[in-house]
Amino acid sequence: MNNSDLKNLIKKQKPNYTLDQAFYVDNDIFELDIKNIFSKQWVFVGHSSRIPNFGDYFLFNIGNESIIIIRDEKNTIHAHYNVCRHRGSHICLENEGNKKLLTCPYHAWSYNLDGSIKSARLMNEGFNKEDWNLHKCNLKIFEGLIFINLSENPNNFDEFISPTRKFIEFHGLAEAKIAHRELYPTEGNWKLTLDNFHECYHCQPSHPEYCSVHDKDYILAYGAGSNTGPSSKKFNKMLENWNLEVKKMGHVTGEYTETEFNDYSRSAERTPLKEGKYNETKSGKPISKLMGKFKNYDRGYTSVGTSPFNSLLMCNDFATLFTFIPVSTLHTQVELMWLVHKDAKEGKDYDLEEIKWMWDVTTIADKRIIEDNQKGVLSKKYVPGPLSKMEKGLEKFKTWYLKHLDIAIS
Amino acid sequence: MNNSDLKNLIKKQKPNYTLDQAFYVDNDIFELDIKNIFSKQWVFVGHSSRIPNFGDYFLFNIGNESIIIIRDEKNTIHAHYNVCRHRGSHICLENEGNKKLLTCPYHAWSYNLDGSIKSARLMNEGFNKEDWNLHKCNLKIFEGLIFINLSENPNNFDEFISPTRKFIEFHGLAEAKIAHRELYPTEGNWKLTLDNFHECYHCQPSHPEYCSVHDKDYILAYGAGSNTGPSSKKFNKMLENWNLEVKKMGHVTGEYTETEFNDYSRSAERTPLKEGKYNETKSGKPISKLMGKFKNYDRGYTSVGTSPFNSLLMCNDFATLFTFIPVSTLHTQVELMWLVHKDAKEGKDYDLEEIKWMWDVTTIADKRIIEDNQKGVLSKKYVPGPLSKMEKGLEKFKTWYLKHLDIAIS
Amino acid sequence: MNNSDLKNLIKKQKPNYTLDQAFYVDNDIFELDIKNIFSKQWVFVGHSSRIPNFGDYFLFNIGNESIIIIRDEKNTIHAHYNVCRHRGSHICLENEGNKKLLTCPYHAWSYNLDGSIKSARLMNEGFNKEDWNLHKCNLKIFEGLIFINLSENPNNFDEFISPTRKFIEFHGLAEAKIAHRELYPTEGNWKLTLDNFHECYHCQPSHPEYCSVHDKDYILAYGAGSNTGPSSKKFNKMLENWNLEVKKMGHVTGEYTETEFNDYSRSAERTPLKEGKYNETKSGKPISKLMGKFKNYDRGYTSVGTSPFNSLLMCNDFATLFTFIPVSTLHTQVELMWLVHKDAKEGKDYDLEEIKWMWDVTTIADKRIIEDNQKGVLSKKYVPGPLSKMEKGLEKFKTWYLKHLDIAIS
Repeated sequence: MNNSDLKNLIKKQKPNYTLDQAFYVDNDIFELDIKNIFSKQWVFVGHSSRIPNFGDYFLFNIGNESIIIIRDEKNTIHAHYNVCRHRGSHICLENEGNKKLLTCPYHAWSYNLDGSIKSARLMNEGFNKEDWNLHKCNLKIFEGLIFINLSENPNNFDEFISPTRKFIEFHGLAEAKIAHRELYPTEGNWKLTLDNFHECYHCQPSHPEYCSVHDKDYILAYGAGSNTGPSSKKFNKMLENWNLEVKKMGHVTGEYTETEFNDYSRSAERTPLKEGKYNETKSGKPISKLMGKFKNYDRGYTSVGTSPFNSLLMCNDFATLFTFIPVSTLHTQVELMWLVHKDAKEGKDYDLEEIKWMWDVTTIADKRIIEDNQKGVLSKKYVPGPLSKMEKGLEKFKTWYLKHLDIAIS
Repeated sequence: MNNSDLKNLIKKQKPNYTLDQAFYVDNDIFELDIKNIFSKQWVFVGHSSRIPNFGDYFLFNIGNESIIIIRDEKNTIHAHYNVCRHRGSHICLENEGNKKLLTCPYHAWSYNLDGSIKSARLMNEGFNKEDWNLHKCNLKIFEGLIFINLSENPNNFDEFISPTRKFIEFHGLAEAKIAHRELYPTEGNWKLTLDNFHECYHCQPSHPEYCSVHDKDYILAYGAGSNTGPSSKKFNKMLENWNLEVKKMGHVTGEYTETEFNDYSRSAERTPLKEGKYNETKSGKPISKLMGKFKNYDRGYTSVGTSPFNSLLMCNDFATLFTFIPVSTLHTQVELMWLVHKDAKEGKDYDLEEIKWMWDVTTIADKRIIEDNQKGVLSKKYVPGPLSKMEKGLEKFKTWYLKHLDIAIS
Repeated sequence: MNNSDLKNLIKKQKPNYTLDQAFYVDNDIFELDIKNIFSKQWVFVGHSSRIPNFGDYFLFNIGNESIIIIRDEKNTIHAHYNVCRHRGSHICLENEGNKKLLTCPYHAWSYNLDGSIKSARLMNEGFNKEDWNLHKCNLKIFEGLIFINLSENPNNFDEFISPTRKFIEFHGLAEAKIAHRELYPTEGNWKLTLDNFHECYHCQPSHPEYCSVHDKDYILAYGAGSNTGPSSKKFNKMLENWNLEVKKMGHVTGEYTETEFNDYSRSAERTPLKEGKYNETKSGKPISKLMGKFKNYDRGYTSVGTSPFNSLLMCNDFATLFTFIPVSTLHTQVELMWLVHKDAKEGKDYDLEEIKWMWDVTTIADKRIIEDNQKGVLSKKYVPGPLSKMEKGLEKFKTWYLKHLDIAIS
């Protein structure tokens, strides 16, 4: 498909309908998506507690790319492309480990942990070492979250994080640790994967566990974020009362949504959990050490989207973080990371199974749902279908996506 | 390959030679085959006894398409594309089962078994339910055989079935049941798979079991149908005598072949089995209840081809039905279905192993043969080879195929 | 990529740098490589001792091609494409075996072992048997080595083998037998696989076993052949002394490299092993019967490259032979064959494990190295890197390759 055909196709997309098939199955569009959407966003791919010591590293892999995230002797974390500047070999072969020096296993070129080249034996005249440092990847650490950006000209990080900053900071993620990580490889296009995450219309038929934790009216009106469903007077009243109460406790309240089109697709809000629930567990009872600035439980739930590729769903005593990675046209990697207070001890302060329960079972269900959705979308009979009142979040995401793509190819 | 190149290639094909490599390996030609050949034929994909009760269904899958074949409360069988009209999810996830209502597992849109939409929650203004029924697939039930047609403008079914009707009806398939089904996934282009089925030149070297059941002269002259090999005076005499005898019994006799080019590629004939054989089993002895209008065994064998994609090979007391499904350029699904009288009881009236034996072992051999044929046809050294006197059926199929393709791209 | 783009890309390649990414990952370039490089070379694919008796055969498979190498009743070895001239089926289905007649398993067309057709049943008028012999593949046996050439106009074999002849002949491979064969399927482009074999810059970091057998100064200067590294006065002195000594014994000495561009990429040289070593084993002690014209051990090592796709690394009492087969863009088959004197008995005259040891462990390491190299080369951040003083062999191979490709597409 050439750019002019694609521009026409973009123009043809109707409000409040799903996208045409091509957007979910075409390899050329996928390449454009990676280049123009994914590669321009700040995406968090881990938490600094995963690599606590000098030399600790892990790899972030996406398609043909592999990024080394490593902590140096001065406690600074770096991100480098895992490509030796000599003949191109991968340097780190294991998904995680510890290295005090990045030595390529092929010909032993070595690099300092900041990516600067240290040694290359027997080079020809005219070889300038300083020209051959590792390719850097943009990286920022914010509250322990490791953000990378694959763009050559990344957006300003402070501008990017500014509207969600206070919500994240209140939860003290910098003082957290990873309780568990889990991968849910999903055979579906990244947009079908995110469509699923941008609406809670499917929650009632598909996610009994989620519905046992969250209030029916919350799900209706706020299930995929503020203003993603029909407004509920009942829930608005609940929210109003809760806001008053929580403000008195000195806790953060309120919400953020993008009001005009820009490079970002961010959102944040704090809302009360279902009556009687303190967090997203089966019992709903307090389960671990309070995190961040919480002195007392406020029964609140903080939902933050920093980009389409990341979500933070945070209770007072633990947080579930999502990373969605487009791997290929029909494959998306979904990674979940559960964070608890760094001093909380498993078995003593918290039970991992209780913390994992809801989002683990829900993400397993979503994986199946997305895969069955993709199968149908591949049919020649698939045509865009009409969206419901509970799919406003999906519509918003779709609009943002189409505008970005349109601008990128103009 | 553009249409003009393909037209030239079609013109280049020589009578009594196999096709050029491209027809067996090219992805573009495969897409054209599906669109112009397979999708325009009435193809049976099952027997109504597979879904005897209200709500019983099975899926027919081909490539990216999945069709739900389901029986409703009024005993009518329907075929629908397995694609929810909302966001496109598959609705039925299991290959077979029972559903009283077609509820999409994603957002719970529901459809009646006739495909009409029943409910969709919380839709926006302007949503007209009646616009969102399931996509229907053309379907006809004939003698219990479930025929579908993927065309938007299917040929008239009565016209299509007319010449083979009496042969099929005599066997009483409407009063039959499935004794066994088996899949033989074959790594070969669908035309190599059908080439194999359209000649019995390979029977003698490759199929000892088949040759133990059928007369040598029958195999020579009729192995792949009437007039597919050199004529045999000996067999013509046998046939003449048998016809007289069988007519007296009031059984159907005769044969049908297409005499001029048309949309169809149908054939039918009744012939005698090898001396002393009553059916296609190892012993050749009567093995189950007589089917259809047979009052006594007539030692006859009814061979019907309704299209290149289906064959019915019928003895007096059981029938073996073939469905050939082009899945991708180098992959064909072959399904066999053995039918017996609906009142015949396994273990008492028939032994499944005896009934299955010949075509099971023969189809396993054919799978291997076709796969080794495909491997050689992929070689740069493959060039069309000369056909023998026993490959007239293959030549006929090839000619029909090339004409159809030529017309379709004109 | 069209030819004019490719010519520009070829022109852009810089001396003493690795190639651009496309040469290692592009499917079109791979097809050109097969057609213009691999298919024009004489490549040995086995040793005649693998098929000692009338009717013995083995298959040489590459991509979609399968070649039957078979010995006939007059003791002549033939190479035929494994494609029946009738409908194209593979004729030999097993990787090796014994056949007194090549009978196609499909329709029983049969061929003599020299490829001439023997019988085809029931053919139509006008069928001339002599037109339907098997497609021959060019074949030469030299010193027991079975060379094939996939070209329609192969180069003259005697011209091709002339400069390496004396080195190979001295080792008496015609009087040898296969002690062991092993395949090392490698997920990397064939040029990355050969790059690895054309330099010993990686030997010190990656191959401790190799470095225990060979002298440090030999590795530096000669590790990938004569003049592939910086010259070493110390090793030159060793070589000079050893040459004098060995000449006295009447053994072959000297070296060959291509001095001007031609169709071939051949090399040969004899050099001394590390002090105290008699061969490439862990102990370095004599291990089997002396081969060929050796009367006494001379501690020499003969390294011969007949083309980029074959290497012969020969000690006095055994030889390790390499065949590199480009299978697809990202896949190369590497086959090793260890030869010993035909009268040497395993367990008595030699211990297979000792003979295999060094190149088995080294090729397993190279497989891993090449695969990790390929992964990095697939990254968007891969750019050609600078070569060291020890990678002159790689540079020479690269230059030869680029010139050939450039000429082929001109």
